[in-house]
This record gives sequence, C-alpha cells and structure tokens, in this order.
Amino acid sequence: MKRTKTAVPSDIEIAQQASMKKITEIVEQLDIEEEEIELYGKYKAKLSHNILNRLAQKENGKVILVTAINPTPAGEGKSTVTVGLGQALNKLGKKTVIAMREPSLGPTMGLKGGAAGGGYSQVLPMEDINLHFTGDIHAITTANNALAAMIDNHIHQGNELQIDTRRITWKRVVDLNDRALRKVVIGLGGATQGVPREDGFDITVASEIMAVFCLAKDLKDLKARLARIVIGYDVNQKPVTVKDLNVEGALTLLLKDASMPNLVQTMEHSPAIIHGGPFANIAHGCNSVLGTQMAAKLGDYVVTEAGFGADLGAEKFLHIKTPSLGYHPQAVVIVATVRAIKMHGGLSKDQLKMENLEALKLGIENVKKHVETIQSFGLPYVIALNEFVTDTEAEISYVQEWCKAHEIPMALTQVWEKGGEGGLKLAEAVLSEIEKSNDEFTPLYLPENTVEQKLEIIAKTVYGAEGVDILPTAQKQLQLIVGEGWGHLPICMAKTQYSLSDDAKKLGRPQNFTITIRELKPSVGAGFIVALTGNIMTMPGLPKEPAALKMDVDEQGKATGLF
Amino acid sequence: MKRTKTAVPSDIEIAQQASMKKITEIVEQLDIEEEEIELYGKYKAKLSHNILNRLAQKENGKVILVTAINPTPAGEGKSTVTVGLGQALNKLGKKTVIAMREPSLGPTMGLKGGAAGGGYSQVLPMEDINLHFTGDIHAITTANNALAAMIDNHIHQGNELQIDTRRITWKRVVDLNDRALRKVVIGLGGATQGVPREDGFDITVASEIMAVFCLAKDLKDLKARLARIVIGYDVNQKPVTVKDLNVEGALTLLLKDASMPNLVQTMEHSPAIIHGGPFANIAHGCNSVLGTQMAAKLGDYVVTEAGFGADLGAEKFLHIKTPSLGYHPQAVVIVATVRAIKMHGGLSKDQLKMENLEALKLGIENVKKHVETIQSFGLPYVIALNEFVTDTEAEISYVQEWCKAHEIPMALTQVWEKGGEGGLKLAEAVLSEIEKSNDEFTPLYLPENTVEQKLEIIAKTVYGAEGVDILPTAQKQLQLIVGEGWGHLPICMAKTQYSLSDDAKKLGRPQNFTITIRELKPSVGAGFIVALTGNIMTMPGLPKEPAALKMDVDEQGKATGLF
Repeated sequence: MKRTKTAVPSDIEIAQQASMKKITEIVEQLDIEEEEIELYGKYKAKLSHNILNRLAQKENGKVILVTAINPTPAGEGKSTVTVGLGQALNKLGKKTVIAMREPSLGPTMGLKGGAAGGGYSQVLPMEDINLHFTGDIHAITTANNALAAMIDNHIHQGNELQIDTRRITWKRVVDLNDRALRKVVIGLGGATQGVPREDGFDITVASEIMAVFCLAKDLKDLKARLARIVIGYDVNQKPVTVKDLNVEGALTLLLKDASMPNLVQTMEHSPAIIHGGPFANIAHGCNSVLGTQMAAKLGDYVVTEAGFGADLGAEKFLHIKTPSLGYHPQAVVIVATVRAIKMHGGLSKDQLKMENLEALKLGIENVKKHVETIQSFGLPYVIALNEFVTDTEAEISYVQEWCKAHEIPMALTQVWEKGGEGGLKLAEAVLSEIEKSNDEFTPLYLPENTVEQKLEIIAKTVYGAEGVDILPTAQKQLQLIVGEGWGHLPICMAKTQYSLSDDAKKLGRPQNFTITIRELKPSVGAGFIVALTGNIMTMPGLPKEPAALKMDVDEQGKATGLF
Repeated sequence: MKRTKTAVPSDIEIAQQASMKKITEIVEQLDIEEEEIELYGKYKAKLSHNILNRLAQKENGKVILVTAINPTPAGEGKSTVTVGLGQALNKLGKKTVIAMREPSLGPTMGLKGGAAGGGYSQVLPMEDINLHFTGDIHAITTANNALAAMIDNHIHQGNELQIDTRRITWKRVVDLNDRALRKVVIGLGGATQGVPREDGFDITVASEIMAVFCLAKDLKDLKARLARIVIGYDVNQKPVTVKDLNVEGALTLLLKDASMPNLVQTMEHSPAIIHGGPFANIAHGCNSVLGTQMAAKLGDYVVTEAGFGADLGAEKFLHIKTPSLGYHPQAVVIVATVRAIKMHGGLSKDQLKMENLEALKLGIENVKKHVETIQSFGLPYVIALNEFVTDTEAEISYVQEWCKAHEIPMALTQVWEKGGEGGLKLAEAVLSEIEKSNDEFTPLYLPENTVEQKLEIIAKTVYGAEGVDILPTAQKQLQLIVGEGWGHLPICMAKTQYSLSDDAKKLGRPQNFTITIRELKPSVGAGFIVALTGNIMTMPGLPKEPAALKMDVDEQGKATGLF
C-alpha cells in the first residue's frame, strides 16, 4: 500500500515563508559576548575566534557525525537529516548546534539551484547562503588567484626561484562551473604579457586553500599551512612553496575575516554554523575545524556532516579532520533511503516508484558495508532511514526487520516534511547509543604507517577491496613524497562517490575488486596525500539548461529560481 | 624658506589608532530607519534602496564634485581632499555625506597597498575597505564570469545563437593584477572541454558590469542595463546580448545585495558612502549613482569625486553620470599641489624638493585649462591647493597670487595632517561659490549630436585640441554603432590621464595637437561609446616587489602592510 503526501511547496517557497528570528536573538541563547560577533545583515553573523580562547576550559559538546550510504541520483537527504536531527535534539531540550559546509555557487548556478537542507529542515536565509553568503568563498578565490598571479609575476620578473613552468601544480580558480577554463594557455601576447605556459582553472572549492582553511585551528596555523603549500617544482625538481614566494602573510590577511565561522539559524531557529566547503574527493569534504570547534563550545551536542558516503566523507573526517579537531565524534548517523537502497539493488531511477523488495534486499548490502566501516572505527551509530513519498509500508518494514535481525540501531525520519518533529526518533536513538557507548574510537591507521599500508587499510577495511594496485606514475610520485618527508601525512582518497569500488557503475556491495591508484598528489599545506583512482573532475561544466536561466529577482529584491 | 613638518605615522597606523564610532551611531545621525540597514560588522552597513523611495520628496543635498589637474607621479591627494572637505563641512555645521569609489584589490596587492584617503582624512575601517569590504567587487567578478561561463556553455551546447567565437567581446575578470591572463587560449583539451578560442581577462573594475552597476538607478534599471550588454557578434555580425542568452535575471540576482550602498565613517566620524569603482578610462570612473543619490537624500551636502583629472573624470561625471543621477553638481573642486604643478612645468620627480618658481609658472597652465573646462559647463569651482611638506612659502604665494590675478577662487588645504580642520578654508570658499552661483549648468553636447560632433566637442573644449582624427578601424566601428542605433549614447573617452592630449608625455597645457580616435567600442549596457585614443591597459601587472610581500596579519588578526 502506497502512502500519500499532500502537495508541498518548493524549498525556496518554504524558506521565504519561514519567520526568521534576528540572529542577535539566536546569539543570546548561546554563550557569546557582544564583542564576539560581527553581524552580516540581520540574519547572519560571524563569530570571533576569541570565543574558543575564552571557553578553552569548557567541556566540548558531543559531536554527532552524519554520513550516508554511497550517494545515488535518487538522493538521500544527508544535509536535510543533519538539520532535522539538530532541530530534533533541540526539541528534546538538548542544546545543539549544527555545523555544515558552505555551498559553492558553481553547482547552484548550474544544476542544483541551491543546497542548504530541504523542506522544513533548511538553514536560513536560504538565498544568502546559496549566493555570496558572507563572502568566504570569494576570499578563498581571491587568495588562490593572488598566489597564482604572484607565481607568474615571479617568473616574468626573472624567475629567481627557477620555477619550472612545465611543473607548476598551482591552478587558478573560479567559483563557477566553467568547463572552457579547464585547460588553457596563458601568458600569450609577447614579452610584456608574461611567460606563456599551460594552465587550468579549478572550481574554488577544489582549491588547496579551501582545504587549508577548513583544517586550520587558528590564524597562526592557517599561515603556517599556507606557507607549506607546494605550488610546483623548480628546474631541479625540488618543491617550491608559498614560503619561498614570501606571500603567506598576504594570503592569511586575505582570509582573516573569512576564517571567522558563520552563524545562521534553521527553520526552527536552531543555531547552525556554516563554514568552509572543500571537495570531498580531492579534499576532505568537511566544514571547517574552527566551525566544528565553535559549535562544540557553544552546544552540548553538535550535529555535523561529511561529504558523499561513509567510504569517503566519514573516513576522511575520522582520519584527516579528527586530528586537527582534537577530538572524535561520539556517534555516527548513516543516512539511507528506500529509493537509494533500491538503486544499489540494481534499479534505474525510473523504476523506483514501484515496490521492489528484491532490489531492496540486494541493495541493503551497501548499507551493511558502511555499518561495518563505522564499527571498525569503534564508534556507535544509527541508520537514519529518510522516508520518501513513494516508499511502501512493506519496503519500510523490510528495512526495519533487516536492521532488527542484524542488531543495527535504526530510526525513520520525516525531516523534510516535519522538520525536527520528524527527527525525534532518530535523536532519541542517537542519544541512547551515545549513552551506551564505551567510547572506543581507534583510527584505522597511524601516521607512522607507510603510504602503501594506509592505502591498503582504507581499500580493504573501508571499501571491502582485496588490495590496491599502485600504477607506475603513482609509484614514482610515492618516491618523491617519501623523499620529501611527506610520508607521515594521512591519505585523502579521490575516488568515485557512487561505488565502494573505484568503478562508479559497481553499486551495492561489490566483491573481488582492487583499487587502482593512478596518481599520488601531495597537498602539503592541507596536510594530506591525495590518492587518485581515476579522473576526478575539479572543474564541473554547465548543463544545456543551467539553473541560472530560471533565476530572477524582482524590483523589491525577492529572489526566485533557487529551489 | 622651507617649512618643516614633524614625523608623521603611516596611513594604516593613523587608521588603526583612530577611535571609530559604531556604525549604528553614524546611522542615528541620519534619516535612516532601523529596517533600512544591514550591518556588516560593527563599522560597516549596507543601506536599503527603500531610503530613496521613502525620501523621494525630500530635496536633494547639494553635490560638490572633487576633481583634479592631470595626475602626476607626485600625487595630488584627490581622495584625501574629498574626505577632508566633507569633514570640514561637517565641522561648519553643514550636514555632509561623502560619496566615494571602492578600491580594487589588484592595485592594493600590487603597487598602492591601499587607497581610502590618507592621514587624518581617511575613511575607516581602512583595512576592510581595502580588502574585501562588503564583497561588492566579488559579486561583480562573479556576475561577469558567470556570464562568460554561460557564453562558452552556449557555444559548447550547440551554439543556437550562432555566436562567432572570433568576435566575442565579453572577457573574464579577476580583481587582481595578473598580466599572464591578458591574452589566453581557452577551451583546450578536446571535445568535452568546450570550444577553443582566444580570450583574455580584465581586472574586475574594468568590467562593463561595474559600469552598469554604477549607473543603474534601481534593480529594475540594473536588470534592463544588464540585458542590453552586447557580449559579441554572431556569424552575421549582428550583436548578441545578455537578453539573447536569457541570464539577466541571474546576473541581477548575483548583484542584488551588492547594489545596496555601503556606509562607513571618516576619521572624524563624518558619514561616507563608498560604493562601486569603475575604471576612469574605458568607463566613467565615478562611484555609483545609487551611492550619490543616497548621500544626497541623507546629507544637505554631498562631497564626491571622479577619477583622474577634470579632462576625464569630471567630464564623464557631467556627461555620463549626471543624466542617470538626475541632477548635476552645484560646485567643483579642482585639486592641485605645488609638486604636481611643477611636474607639469617640466621637472622630474627627484627635482621636486627644490623651490622652482619657473616650473610653477609653466605648469600652472595645466590648472588653467581645467578651470576653463569647468567654466564651460557653467559650474562654480574652487582650486584646492593641497599643501605638502616640501612646498616653500614663495611657491605657495606664487599660486595664490596667480589665482588672485586670474580671479580664480582658491584655498589652501592641509587635510592630510589636520583632517577637517585643514579643509575649513576650502569648505568656506566652496560654500561661498555655491551661494553666489546662478546654477547655469549646461552639458557641452546633447544626445542628438553625432558621435563625431561629440568627439570633437570633448577634444576641443575639454582638451584644447584642434580636432579629432578618426582612424579607419574606428570609422568602421562608427558605422556599426550608428547602424545599430547606438549613436545617441554619450562618449566615454579612454585617453591617458597624464596629459590633456593623447600623448602621456605632453604635460602642462599642450598646444597644436589633435586627438587620434583608434577604436570605438560600444558599452551598450552601461550606455556609452568608449573612444580609445591608444592602448588602454585593462589588466595591470604586478611590479617586481608587489605590495603584498609586505602584508601580514598577526595572531590577533591585526593587519600590517596596507599603507
């Protein structure tokens, strides 16, 4: 029997009808002093780093990490569950602050039209968050491109550092989807116009500066990480750093204001910190350390999310972000939907409306693998089955029974339609798991493991692979990495998000596969080694009908077309 | 006899020691309602367009336009006089609001290290204004580059509009000095990476969107102007517009918040609106119409400036900005210094410290020409002789006597050292000239004049040339312009700022020259025809030792290196 749902308005309609409190009212609920906020309009504020110093001795709130099964085109609603769970915990009287990533303008103008949760579990003001917000990403774009201009100017002015123009790894960025900038030749036009060379643009959120920004603990750490960034190699193939160019001070100055975490509110006036948004493949895909730390000082609970599925986002949160953060999550929520599980069971998107228990049975193995991954870290967890209008009673029962049989804690959520109310069961389940937990978190690898060991541990334990195959190019890069003393860094896997394997088409729980490591790229400033298993797109393109074509603003400044 | 001056601190030191009032206190002095401001931190606010609607019936404040002689490397201090005069008028009890341009990050990181007045006539917070401020320029960068991405995506997706990829005039921008981006080839890498073509980047302030932004009267006008922008030509050489691409709504949405003028304060807490900053050669070089209109509704007097000397900035203010603004200035201040006049008299920069009355006598002809120009518009004016430590008594006397002999109102200013106090004489002189004035403003040409007539009028009356020489390329472009019905638009001269002529080396008051018009480029969205007399650099380069190398920020977030 199918359940029905009444017609619901779009996300932007819900957002625009929502009554927001002034952000100063949200601030008043929290332990923040007047001098510690910078208002950005009536509904956004930046928070001073001073809060962290002042509350240094205060116990940190318990961090709940929201992750998901491997994403599918059916959509899982990870951000929506993150917001909904935060709202639910506040409804239960637990002082909770949400910590999320900032959306990039590129996908907003391109395909998505906006991303800040959905329905009655959104962060507000939705238009601002999806457009320029408080300018953080623009500051990162500017710092990234200022560095690029300094590199090319250095070369033009005599190239004292003997930078090899064929080996510059630093690319320019725009916060847009612009495929025509992927591969370019710059410096054309003669001797006064710079030195010609091949170059390319990434989307800003793929900049190493975004990763650095999100892992820095304070301005000092930010400057030190920026200084360590390797921009390319000299004619002797020795790394050239930002410090060599002497611009870490200027770059830090450009990021000074952006480094203050942003406070906004949800539909139900729960406080939400939205700060930083690195890619989840070539970077670690989590909001800033400063944002999470701030949330943990201001709330007794923090609900935060990581990019893509648990194989990428959660693994990186636990191996890359946790050391900077200084503490680990107390519980993990794994978001799944009946529709997405059925796609992992082999259905195509247009087959999802029909009940199909067989597909569910096959697809649920994907869920199981992610559960095992979280177990291997020693962390308590809850499956959040995020309900959708087309789910049937039988399908939902199947998942419930399966979880029961496997002793996997789970809860149904209806956070899109009902906001926090729809996340209460999940909130209760999470609190109960935290209560029962013995807190036995262990990372799967340690800094002293070799790069090969780290790769193998991730591939076997997290992906369920038989091992890794490191191709000759990557082997050569590995020698450089070890030779330069970067071998202690954690690994940042750049793998397809759609599959546990490195083949996007292998859904469910693939068996008998190895992970092919094609390239190993050091992100020394961020502090990780990116392991590429295939071509990772760091500059998206626009579709034939970009979302921007539907966007508009009326004479009173009211936005339309951000869904 | 040389006068001496005690050692003075740098601009940033003065700025950082200044005590700012909270911007809410500045707002309280003005007719602004609580709902009409958006705070950006404690010392900056954006002002709602609603103020203009609410005060529509209120008489506009009197606008005082600050311009200058042809700029020299000696520096004139036009912005400093603008701020100082505003402060002086407030000291005299005249409710005055300053309206200025936003500085671009490119020159700040490159040569200048900052630009927001100087000494005790600065706008604050100096660091913010010189870095990202409220993000307006970043919004313009984003809108400009979103349009570029839409153009290349349109071509990649089948090129329905048959855009000729060799005739795309729309360039990408960054708000940086980056010479390596002047001439590039994009779209390389094969069929999935876009269509290869020649392209180039300008600095953001040279974007037509900046000019559009600064001339728009409201969001509706902004959208209409954006829609009219010509991005290039199709295979039949017909113009292709933003409207053809259907993205004017999205671009307006990206500029919605930026279009609200920014309110800050001076060292002496005078209100200052800083909004928009277009190039003064290929664009009109004045802060936004909305900013000036807002200042005129909030103050009984407005002090505003235009770019470069009176031959470019003031002429464009009066022919291009005035029609959008809806009213004209009531008086003009022409800023000069003894040092700059001596350079116009033939001295090099290292000869300026020595008294030289002969050079002064020759160079003062440059001042005279600008006076005649302002007279030709029928506007009252005052020369502001901005004093400098190396000026001698005899030199200052010479200028005073010369002005007296020619019945030219003049006043000495010491606004850098003394703030408003140093501008009191100027303020009194300006008020007296406004008092005496019969308000006989007449533009030098009318829309119905032909393009040739307009060019000739500017060349003869403003520059003192014998006429114009329109080269064949420009003649051909003129045919297109007239054919497309753009002939009624005003002219925006892109000429060297250093000379009244089109040869940067001809200082003073050149005689017997003609102005060579090399190209005529329509900026249909902005609403003017750019007449290029030579190569105009729309993407600066960095020097060997960029200002950025000295910039830094400490652990508490305190900036250094912005001078």
